[in-house]
This record gives sequence, C-alpha cells and structure tokens, in this order.
Amino acid sequence: MPKKRVRLAQRVVSESDRVAETLAARFREAGVWVANLMSSPGSGKTTLLEETARRLGSDLRLGVIEGDLATDRDAARIRRTGVPCHQINTGGGCHLSAQQVAEALDHFDLARLDVLFIENVGNLVCPAEFYLGERRRVVLASTPEGDDKPVKYPVAFHHADCVVLNKVDLLDATGFSLEAFRGYVHGVKPGVPILELSCRTGQGLDAWLDWVRAERRAAAK
Amino acid sequence: MPKKRVRLAQRVVSESDRVAETLAARFREAGVWVANLMSSPGSGKTTLLEETARRLGSDLRLGVIEGDLATDRDAARIRRTGVPCHQINTGGGCHLSAQQVAEALDHFDLARLDVLFIENVGNLVCPAEFYLGERRRVVLASTPEGDDKPVKYPVAFHHADCVVLNKVDLLDATGFSLEAFRGYVHGVKPGVPILELSCRTGQGLDAWLDWVRAERRAAAK
Repeated sequence: MPKKRVRLAQRVVSESDRVAETLAARFREAGVWVANLMSSPGSGKTTLLEETARRLGSDLRLGVIEGDLATDRDAARIRRTGVPCHQINTGGGCHLSAQQVAEALDHFDLARLDVLFIENVGNLVCPAEFYLGERRRVVLASTPEGDDKPVKYPVAFHHADCVVLNKVDLLDATGFSLEAFRGYVHGVKPGVPILELSCRTGQGLDAWLDWVRAERRAAAK
Repeated sequence: MPKKRVRLAQRVVSESDRVAETLAARFREAGVWVANLMSSPGSGKTTLLEETARRLGSDLRLGVIEGDLATDRDAARIRRTGVPCHQINTGGGCHLSAQQVAEALDHFDLARLDVLFIENVGNLVCPAEFYLGERRRVVLASTPEGDDKPVKYPVAFHHADCVVLNKVDLLDATGFSLEAFRGYVHGVKPGVPILELSCRTGQGLDAWLDWVRAERRAAAK
C-alpha cells in the first residue's frame, strides 16, 4: 500500500476501532457470542454457515450478517435454513466496517440471539485490518487455493483464533499437502486450532460445531 | 468502504493514475505488451504464467513482475522457467501500485522484452481500482470458487479484457455450471472473451497462448 494511503487508512481504522469497542460491549451485555469469518472468495464461508445453521440451529439461536460487494445471494441462502440474516452490500468496499455492522444490528433483537456470525467480504487481505467487536475470528482456507496461503497472506492467519480448512474431499485432486499447510499455519500463528473439514461430505463438521459450542460456553462464564 | 476512506482513496488513485500513464507511455515506446493479471488467492495466476513461460518463452521474450504481501515463492517458481522475474512484497498492501511497478522496472531491460506480465496481489476487490499502465487486464477465476463470483465481485469482471476460467478439470467435483458462469460474466461485461482451461491438464492452454499472441500483434501495429 502506498505510504500515504497507509497513513490515511490508519486514521480511519482507529475511528473504526472505537465503534467496534462499543459493539463488543453490546454483544457482551446481550450475552451474544460473535465470530467474524474471513477468507478468499469461494472458500466456502456461506456453505459452512448453512451447514452450521442446519446442525446447530435447534440448540442455539443463531443470526448471520452477510457482507458482499453486491447481490443478496448469500443472505437468501442463509434465510432458507430458517436463521435470521441481514445482507450488507459494500458497493466496491473490500471489507466490512464496524459502522456497517452497527447499522445491521438494527435488524436483529440481540436478546433473542445466542450466536452471531459475521461473514466478511471475500478477501484474504483487507478484512484482517478491521476489528468488528467479535469475540473470535475464524479464517477459512480451502484445498484448491493451495497449501502455501498462510505464508503468502500472513496477516489474516496471524489474527485468526481458529483456522478452518474446507474442501478436504478435494485433497487428492488438488495435490494439497496437509502437513505443509499445518506447518505454514503454525509458523504464522503457533498453536491456533486447525479444523479440517468438507462441507460437501460433512467430514469434520462435528469438530467445528464442538469448537463453536465450547467457545460460546467459555465466553458465557 | 466508509465514505471518508473512499474520498481519501480517490485522491491517492488519481496520483497513481498519473504514474500509470507514464508507465503506459514507456511500455508503448519500448514495444512491450503488458497484461495485468488479477484473481482471488489460489486461482492459479502463477501456474498459468509458468505454463505460459514454458510454451511461449521460445517465441517471445517474456518478463514477469510478481506481487505478493510476503515471500518470494512465486518469483522463484517463475525464474525456474528461465523467464526474468522481479518480486514485489507489499507488506500488508492489498494491491500493486503504479509506483511499485515503476520501481520494479529498474530490474528489467524493456528493450529486451516483448511481453510483460504483472501478477497482482491475490485479491478480487482492490487491484481492480488501480491502473498499472497495462495494455490488457486479465481476470482469472477457478471452478472451486463457484460460478457466481462475477456477480458478487462485479468491479473486477467489469474491467476485464479477458476472463480466464482455470481448473476446468475440477468441473464435476465442484458442481460448477459453465453455462451459469458465462451468463454471469457477460451480464457484467458483455462480449468479453472467456477462456476455459486447466493448467493441470493443459486443456485450453493453446487458446490462451493464441489470445496473447494476437493481442500483442494487434498492439504492435
């Protein structure tokens, strides 16, 4: 990023952080556990949330905020699972802002939610710079993207509380090395949990649901 | 993007455009045909350039500029094909700037090049906003990302002179609809050529090489 743009962006980020802190306080007071999901386009964020809604929606009261440059396709997919969802369209914007999330909350009754997922704009770079008041940050990768993404996009992975590797059903077809990927992830963020799964086959989804339940319980204490 | 950030970014973009115009003039004078490649992380930009170098490197004098947040992995891959390559690391930066490309040109003798490929940072949003003096803009997508990306990331596709769909060997495994994808692309950018290929199997690569040769010839006239 050109130096001038970095300086300007930093000033905007600090304003955004102030809004995010007020969001975090609202979430704590309402007892809502919030995760901010980020990944490249097409890693499977929406599909993971659809599967999560179908499998967890009877135990916990879920809500979803969808972020996209354009269309409400993802929100429509989530709503078909019965989970309330609000779509944010950023226009050309490359990430969700705390301000946008604050406005989206007008469409939810936080007292009626246990868990809120915020699906960020598909972009493995910019969303990592913006705190949205979330309790946990989840970074998704998928096998067709290649196993070296953690070292090529280190900022996103460095700030991850959980790394989900989706599309493990395509491991053989893509020549993806699990061993290399795990090494790269832990080189950038030592000890972060890595959940390897396939939304298509269902493999590994239980471990993801267990992680969500455990994190929510721990936050509620 | 928050309004304030948009205004600040626009000022920076216009400075960047002035530098890009001087780059375009340098490329024209030197007779170098330049393409700016952009896509999500892991769509296969570097693999396409490796295959292009291997198949076109004996006919045309190629050069590559690689843009990544971190590592020189991609430049090392290109250099192994015998093609000169310079790696730009952007730090946290989400796109290449014209200034960075201008500095990278110190590492090339333009008089000894016919074609220069600029591989942008893996990001389907921000690079689309920044002109780098290129003659043609190539946007890659890949089947595992899903067929709806053109409508969800319309800015990148709207500015494309050529759309490459990679990983067609994974069509069946990913449930990707070619018909839907073509419709979405041409809804955003009517008439843009769509080249469907697989860098893994070689299918469709000849049409890509023909496009590069024809575009270069047309520019030289």
